[in-house]
Amino acid sequence: MTSTFDVCAIGNALVDVIADATDDFLKTHKIAKGAMTLIDAERAAVLYDMIGPAVQISGGSAGNTVAGIASLGGKPAYMGKVKADQLGAIFRHDMHAQGVHFATPPAPEKRQSVKPVEIDRRGGAPTGRCLILVTPDAQRSMSTYLGAAIEFTAADVQPEVIRESQITYLEGYLFDPPEAKKAFRYAAKIVHETERRLSLTLSDVFCVERHRAEFLDLIKNEVDILFANQNELLALYETQDLDKAVAAAREHCAISITTRSEKGAIITRGAETVEVPAAPVARVVDTTGAGDLFAAGFLYGLTHGKTLAEAGRIGAVAAAEVISHYGPRPQVQLSKLLTAA
Amino acid sequence: MTSTFDVCAIGNALVDVIADATDDFLKTHKIAKGAMTLIDAERAAVLYDMIGPAVQISGGSAGNTVAGIASLGGKPAYMGKVKADQLGAIFRHDMHAQGVHFATPPAPEKRQSVKPVEIDRRGGAPTGRCLILVTPDAQRSMSTYLGAAIEFTAADVQPEVIRESQITYLEGYLFDPPEAKKAFRYAAKIVHETERRLSLTLSDVFCVERHRAEFLDLIKNEVDILFANQNELLALYETQDLDKAVAAAREHCAISITTRSEKGAIITRGAETVEVPAAPVARVVDTTGAGDLFAAGFLYGLTHGKTLAEAGRIGAVAAAEVISHYGPRPQVQLSKLLTAA
Repeated sequence: MTSTFDVCAIGNALVDVIADATDDFLKTHKIAKGAMTLIDAERAAVLYDMIGPAVQISGGSAGNTVAGIASLGGKPAYMGKVKADQLGAIFRHDMHAQGVHFATPPAPEKRQSVKPVEIDRRGGAPTGRCLILVTPDAQRSMSTYLGAAIEFTAADVQPEVIRESQITYLEGYLFDPPEAKKAFRYAAKIVHETERRLSLTLSDVFCVERHRAEFLDLIKNEVDILFANQNELLALYETQDLDKAVAAAREHCAISITTRSEKGAIITRGAETVEVPAAPVARVVDTTGAGDLFAAGFLYGLTHGKTLAEAGRIGAVAAAEVISHYGPRPQVQLSKLLTAA
Repeated sequence: MTSTFDVCAIGNALVDVIADATDDFLKTHKIAKGAMTLIDAERAAVLYDMIGPAVQISGGSAGNTVAGIASLGGKPAYMGKVKADQLGAIFRHDMHAQGVHFATPPAPEKRQSVKPVEIDRRGGAPTGRCLILVTPDAQRSMSTYLGAAIEFTAADVQPEVIRESQITYLEGYLFDPPEAKKAFRYAAKIVHETERRLSLTLSDVFCVERHRAEFLDLIKNEVDILFANQNELLALYETQDLDKAVAAAREHCAISITTRSEKGAIITRGAETVEVPAAPVARVVDTTGAGDLFAAGFLYGLTHGKTLAEAGRIGAVAAAEVISHYGPRPQVQLSKLLTAA
């Protein structure tokens, strides 16, 4: 079956605001280390006031993944909601500049009284942002203000794009905004009607805790390709036994990928199991985007006729690149890096 | 004479939008390599559409310098104009987060019909930005849309801050917006009334070409501490003979600093001459901010009782840090770096 796109991803469209922080800072401000915590506009403003000088880079988990696929030479599409504001323009530019098809209209302007918060004075929520604090151990701790991302609805799902994509990739984070969850379900329905493949990433341990029952239902009945890191998979199946968790994922999904940081990844497809080592990194600077870029590499490989082992290796190379610098998206052309590797 | 601030800087307040580019791209789009070119809103929008995925970091030449002084442990103040928009909030946050006194009110909202350009739809110019293209040789080529920065006027100069600053530092770029030039002159007047010191950086060769006569007048009559790179100084004095240019600067200003990239810097004070070597850099990634950070280190040293040679060394260390990564501001605490150096 021919397709216009390799992968269509749907996710919360966010701009990352990245700053260094100490472990003490995380403790003082009650930020869960290594996790993603949802915050409201007020908390976002307070927290932003506290953090050091920052760098702004387009992010969003699934957004990073499609940026990676494009950087590898693939043909990705993306759906997600920004506002028609400066951060939204940044997000949109970076998608188009990277070669990602992205046509979701911005959230509408709403006429309402001007709020006193500088960051949000035009009515309606501004483009969402993720405050990422990087500790000296290169771990990232994320506080996400979803903003306009919560206005993504089923009406934003473009059925023709999903029908024209080999794989539709959904981030677990989409289960946080209620309307996005409906969009998620709608997208899954189109995928199955078209006999395309549906892929899900579990996104975050706390996200799994929030939505375990629904995730399990999806995974058992609808998901073809499941991405999780070790902790997310253990949380999903409520076990401390990785073999048991991987066995469950193997049973539930045609393909499962469990990433384990420097220990590499375990990939299953039916009875087949492939272990992929992590690619070497001279110095780990910021782990943001590691999982997103592993998924990018793997999905690129899978949609380009590679074996599981080869697809896993591409994922490992892409992940290694992104953790060697600040920011969640590749800084070099990954296709060239791959040729060199 | 006691002072609240070491240095007060006035400059065009800009957010940098940094992307990689090839030399061919610069040629195709007629971007002067290594220089700063002023562009209008339309050209900014067109150029932005062309460039690759970008990173957004607070910038502005004098803004970078005060950020560096704060990072060294000094007490700087800044004056410059942003809009009350998202980029303006980023600029303001980064100044405050770095410990820079910055109280210039944002440019006022103007009620006018909504424009179709997404980047500029609220009426009045948005926060200015500098599109910085970094070529593989680490050279940066800048296209600046001044935006709200042109709305900085003499009324924005806070005389009490200038009176309370040992040195007032002005960027040559301020001569581009007509109202800022008046503000520049007004600030200079206050400096002299208070018997503080006035410092100027020539900013850019083309900037020197645009304003040579006025710069010469200022330098002969008002500037105590002059910063220039070699090419700017040669352009100012319309000579190819560096010795001659340095001799003229020596005659005109109490202190002159001529930076020469990897060849270090030449500092003069009356009959005294000090040559400072460049600090070693493992790999030059992006030269943006090199001059700004040299000025930061030198001004920090000068306002903390250091010799010319010591002040120059601090400048060299600060410049070396900033060219070792993307972005125009330090990524590490410079005071710690200095202790280690």
